Amino acid sequence: MESFFSFLEKRVDDCSSLLCIGLDPHVADLEQPTAASALKFSLNIIKQTAPYAAAYKPNAAFFEQFGSRGWSVLKQVITAIQEESQRLGSLIPVILDAKRGDIASTAEAYAKSTFEQLGAHCITLSPYLGKDSIDPFLTNQEKGVFLLCKTSNPGSGDLQDLHLEGGDLLYERVARLARQWNTKNNIGLVVGATQPEALARVRALAPELWFLAPGVGAQGGDLEIALKAGLRRDGKGMLLPISRGISRAANPALAAAELRDQILSIRYQFGR
Amino acid sequence: MESFFSFLEKRVDDCSSLLCIGLDPHVADLEQPTAASALKFSLNIIKQTAPYAAAYKPNAAFFEQFGSRGWSVLKQVITAIQEESQRLGSLIPVILDAKRGDIASTAEAYAKSTFEQLGAHCITLSPYLGKDSIDPFLTNQEKGVFLLCKTSNPGSGDLQDLHLEGGDLLYERVARLARQWNTKNNIGLVVGATQPEALARVRALAPELWFLAPGVGAQGGDLEIALKAGLRRDGKGMLLPISRGISRAANPALAAAELRDQILSIRYQFGR
Repeated sequence: MESFFSFLEKRVDDCSSLLCIGLDPHVADLEQPTAASALKFSLNIIKQTAPYAAAYKPNAAFFEQFGSRGWSVLKQVITAIQEESQRLGSLIPVILDAKRGDIASTAEAYAKSTFEQLGAHCITLSPYLGKDSIDPFLTNQEKGVFLLCKTSNPGSGDLQDLHLEGGDLLYERVARLARQWNTKNNIGLVVGATQPEALARVRALAPELWFLAPGVGAQGGDLEIALKAGLRRDGKGMLLPISRGISRAANPALAAAELRDQILSIRYQFGR
Repeated sequence: MESFFSFLEKRVDDCSSLLCIGLDPHVADLEQPTAASALKFSLNIIKQTAPYAAAYKPNAAFFEQFGSRGWSVLKQVITAIQEESQRLGSLIPVILDAKRGDIASTAEAYAKSTFEQLGAHCITLSPYLGKDSIDPFLTNQEKGVFLLCKTSNPGSGDLQDLHLEGGDLLYERVARLARQWNTKNNIGLVVGATQPEALARVRALAPELWFLAPGVGAQGGDLEIALKAGLRRDGKGMLLPISRGISRAANPALAAAELRDQILSIRYQFGR
């Protein structure tokens, strides 16, 4: 049986891309502050960027802010990506960026909401509640999770950089645990592209895991430095989410194509 | 200007209760697996228990599992609590149990969703992303947050019990940070009632903070032991969420009244 990351790798090969297109309908970027505008915004990006997208990453917050109608739009957006996948003959995975984390039957309800109700393939989760909060999302190995490890924001160090007895930083321990827990090839890690040192440390601890590495572009991360620190030896293992760098471009299709090619040329340069 | 916890303390005094009624429409407890049944289930609990409720705590997952219609029901449920508050002439705070945690503009969108779109007064948040992920929820001091500190589930120790250099456990550091960050009296902590030792440790570190202490009842926590470990000196500072213990009772109103009184008698017994 195939796992989430085998689907993702197939798509990465099909489109020669490590680009993960973020779908973040910020009110400031919409024609009107409505769910209908958020739908129009998202469908336009999908239509323009699908050939270059290794994955899409809608962020739940920007849909939730419109309440019930926003939630309905989120489902329509995921359905549109599924239709685009069929048209291209290549499954484009949908990663719901939701950073959930809860226990037992509550985690089961979130998994049901994400995978069954919305039809996403993967979700971002917080590791703070431990393994039993992750397990309900791993049962079906065709579905995956990215666990928060070292995030791209200024305050990420408040907890994640704490020194543990024995020498690890907290985020390094999370990387070790994720590797232990990854018995079905459906756990990856969120490691900010703004943190090249952390990317290199986590890559050393988890040579085979996939990273979701936000922070290139709007947050100031440097693409070449991040790729050098985080790519696997096979030149894969790293998804680069870009949101505003594409949605605010004069020509989103061109911006996505250029970013895809820029990443490819860096991969070749490193011989990966 | 009043803060979230001054509103909560007023309600606690008005109803002589530390009971936080959980609204968790588990599919197994509904007449049918639909959003309409989740609404009926929740409204019935609210109607029966309002006089004994220091707060209500709807868990987002059990509404999200019904998609857009579930989100609409969640808003109706919160509106019903607001109406019940008006009828009683005493504001019953609504704590959205959502365990969110994201950065910058995304955290702002979640805060908007929770406080403006849904009309909740407080939200549970993960501390893993650090202070800047919490800040957007603290801006309006009439709104509050409970930060996850030591949770009630078996896997809570995977991260929360890790030993830090300098001697703290991770959850103790979270308690210290929350106390530092609580400059507006609108940050509390989630500490499981299944963990009396942790309750006592966190109470020693944060003598004045409010705790949300789930785990009494279905999860096996002992009410008397938990209260003894976690109550403040003034006999308050601790909300006890109960969900299935009330929703599955033959008479939810009676179950809530009895629990309220049981807690009161334990408080008297301890002279608090």
